[in-house]
Amino acid sequence: MNKVAVILSGCGVFDGAEIHESVLTLLALSQRGIAYQCFAPDMPQLHVVNHLTGDVMEAEQRNVLVESARIARGEVLPVSALVASDYDALLVPGGFGAAKNLSDFALAGADCQVQAEVLRGCREFAELGKPAGYMCIAPAVAARVYPEGVRLTIGNDKGTADAIRAMGAEHVDCDVENVVVDEGHKLVTTPAYMLANNIAEAAQGISKLVDTLLSFR
Amino acid sequence: MNKVAVILSGCGVFDGAEIHESVLTLLALSQRGIAYQCFAPDMPQLHVVNHLTGDVMEAEQRNVLVESARIARGEVLPVSALVASDYDALLVPGGFGAAKNLSDFALAGADCQVQAEVLRGCREFAELGKPAGYMCIAPAVAARVYPEGVRLTIGNDKGTADAIRAMGAEHVDCDVENVVVDEGHKLVTTPAYMLANNIAEAAQGISKLVDTLLSFR
Repeated sequence: MNKVAVILSGCGVFDGAEIHESVLTLLALSQRGIAYQCFAPDMPQLHVVNHLTGDVMEAEQRNVLVESARIARGEVLPVSALVASDYDALLVPGGFGAAKNLSDFALAGADCQVQAEVLRGCREFAELGKPAGYMCIAPAVAARVYPEGVRLTIGNDKGTADAIRAMGAEHVDCDVENVVVDEGHKLVTTPAYMLANNIAEAAQGISKLVDTLLSFR
Repeated sequence: MNKVAVILSGCGVFDGAEIHESVLTLLALSQRGIAYQCFAPDMPQLHVVNHLTGDVMEAEQRNVLVESARIARGEVLPVSALVASDYDALLVPGGFGAAKNLSDFALAGADCQVQAEVLRGCREFAELGKPAGYMCIAPAVAARVYPEGVRLTIGNDKGTADAIRAMGAEHVDCDVENVVVDEGHKLVTTPAYMLANNIAEAAQGISKLVDTLLSFR
């Protein structure tokens, strides 16, 4: 495996990509000698959250691609430019951005839609039989990308798991340091900050996810 | 060592704290079982940079503490509340935020001033003889915090090193995977993204910095 695509959804757990999960993903790839290219949708964020207070900053508007560039140190492309055949695998970190920007799962639950270019890009990996890893709440996106019955986890939150089951996926409870593997679809998922009490716990599951991804041929 | 204070300077390499360095710092602490508390100055950023284009976003204004909360997942305090006696050590990640928000080194070079509350907090650690680690460009701040002759590194960039020497510090060239230690002042520095070609390289130096910090008693 030489190069992996990573889809980000902004910059910050409450309105974008979870920063720790995103950085741990890039670290796990880099430490294994694998190059990566980050992507994000070029569109306004659903909203901007003040991460100190938790309040929505009504007057603010930010762009998902521009804010994702903070995590990617400027090296990020619009997801419309993502061509799955150029990459060996796909990784999607979590954070509310996956449920607010990549999809509207945070608003619509089981009735959610995935952003059109994100859906197209993710489906290309699935249709080419290329491995993919989704973490935290991002498996809600995977439930739309993959056919009914796809096996995945978001940890053990009953309400979220029920919504994902209502979308047709098979949800399996999973501990923070572990992953759920759907061998047929080459899909790996891990709870990350859906369950992690600290960054070291999140790193355990994300490292295992990346190792499992690399084990696919 | 039980608890470490971390001073952030925003969220993003070009106008705030370098995100990878900040997350790698928190990871290294968490993996060694050490608790941390993040701090940041409650003040406007010098400016906001679009990390996709590198351009200053003239119409935008963001607060250093509020943006730092993205990296800290909401758990950040104003640096005015930092009391060194409550912590065993101090860590300061880099990014332009250290030279634009924690100080004005990016504008004033050797004539720079450190933000008043940051200077007070950092000096408390120095005066109590508590260990501290500064990475990337943040050692420019350390050159103001510690007495003349303090031994430190920002890597090997001649212009930056000369400016730091003009501030009275002893600059020592250093590779990305290594650290410079001033035993007398219990100060550890590492180049991180002043030299790192990728996140795995940055992680090597930052891990070594944290291990060196822990070796002080």
